[in-house]
Amino acid sequence: MEASSAPVPSPQARPRRAGYRRLPVEQRREQLIAVALELFATRPPEEVGLDDVAAAAGASRPLVYRYFAGGKQQLYEAALRTAADELSSRFTVPLTGTPTEQLAAVLDRYFAFVAEHDAGYSALLRGGSVVETARTSAIVDDVRRAALKRTLRHLGVREAGPRLTLLVRSWIAVIEGASLTWLDEGRTVPVEELRDWLVDQFVAMAAATALGDPQTAAVLAGLLALERPDDSRVRRLRELLTPRP
Amino acid sequence: MEASSAPVPSPQARPRRAGYRRLPVEQRREQLIAVALELFATRPPEEVGLDDVAAAAGASRPLVYRYFAGGKQQLYEAALRTAADELSSRFTVPLTGTPTEQLAAVLDRYFAFVAEHDAGYSALLRGGSVVETARTSAIVDDVRRAALKRTLRHLGVREAGPRLTLLVRSWIAVIEGASLTWLDEGRTVPVEELRDWLVDQFVAMAAATALGDPQTAAVLAGLLALERPDDSRVRRLRELLTPRP
Repeated sequence: MEASSAPVPSPQARPRRAGYRRLPVEQRREQLIAVALELFATRPPEEVGLDDVAAAAGASRPLVYRYFAGGKQQLYEAALRTAADELSSRFTVPLTGTPTEQLAAVLDRYFAFVAEHDAGYSALLRGGSVVETARTSAIVDDVRRAALKRTLRHLGVREAGPRLTLLVRSWIAVIEGASLTWLDEGRTVPVEELRDWLVDQFVAMAAATALGDPQTAAVLAGLLALERPDDSRVRRLRELLTPRP
Repeated sequence: MEASSAPVPSPQARPRRAGYRRLPVEQRREQLIAVALELFATRPPEEVGLDDVAAAAGASRPLVYRYFAGGKQQLYEAALRTAADELSSRFTVPLTGTPTEQLAAVLDRYFAFVAEHDAGYSALLRGGSVVETARTSAIVDDVRRAALKRTLRHLGVREAGPRLTLLVRSWIAVIEGASLTWLDEGRTVPVEELRDWLVDQFVAMAAATALGDPQTAAVLAGLLALERPDDSRVRRLRELLTPRP
């Protein structure tokens, strides 16, 4: 049996005509999912067939079907579940830095994921894909819930009221929309700029929510108290909200 | 032939067993769509069959098929197109009031639409519905584009740069998410509160975007200059962004 550290062949690799490599069951399953994710990253799911996955994995079509008897839909859902778990694992917040620096670090990891999965990420969040089902929507909702939970924990909130929940959910929706736009525009906007924009959005959206919600007001006050006193972005945000006669 | 002012029967109306009412072609088509929209408002599209539409319309199944040979999917898309056109027509901005009062008025009309279409609106925006296709997604995108265009025009912008466009698109995404949450929670939050929250979000999000974009800064300054000088919400927004030692 071959060494388990054999690299996963890239989608460009020529299929092996004879003597498919024999891999242990779990490893083969993971390899097929990894190959599928690479293909979904460059082409819409409609255009990726089981034959492509088999070819890119150096495996036969029947072998792919042995692992995913439900065909492409099952493979797609397994790949999505793998990607979703990986994304959720990136939501851990670094231990150092001010609250906004920590948010920025998590956003950097998020954008690295978006860049890696590209077309697959777009197809999934845009809707109307032929492989989209109530099940795939549920997987995406799981990720959103994990992001919500992590963000609230980061903000030191145990029980979030409806307005604070709406704020964080809305911010997550803004992140999703911004990353889709970023991909659409060929990643021309520097990702650091987009990340800073999203952090500023969080602060601003929290302030607008705090207008009518004491819990959000307390969270925002706690966050601002931990920022560097010379934070020029928050100061400029205030200035921009000052009407000029 | 009956009077053209005959009311569209409600979905609760008993089907007429004999002597289907004869309606002119275009009127019958509109009636079937109106009946379908009423049914989609209370049940997910999965659970609405052509039989239900026929019964509620006081028509036979073959008659419904005569108008919508593509079956339920075609009827769904026609209904969606009608609803989308109606929603887009509500984006007109009243001539009086400050810019934020005008935004509030448009949002009121938007929420009236959401309340009216309820389940149909949710199913559509949530994704993963069996009747969702690339075509239905395109119809929804058309509405979003119309909303973007209207909002930019309201702000007096002819050519929006990428950051201002991202701001308005993000705000529209926040509106969609907030209306879904509102429906989910049984409309317990007063709609006026949600509408004011969304207007405040716009001002705050614009300020955060203005930090790095002169065009948005100019738009925001223009908007604030037209607001009432005693606008306590903007003043309080500034105060909330002031860190307390």
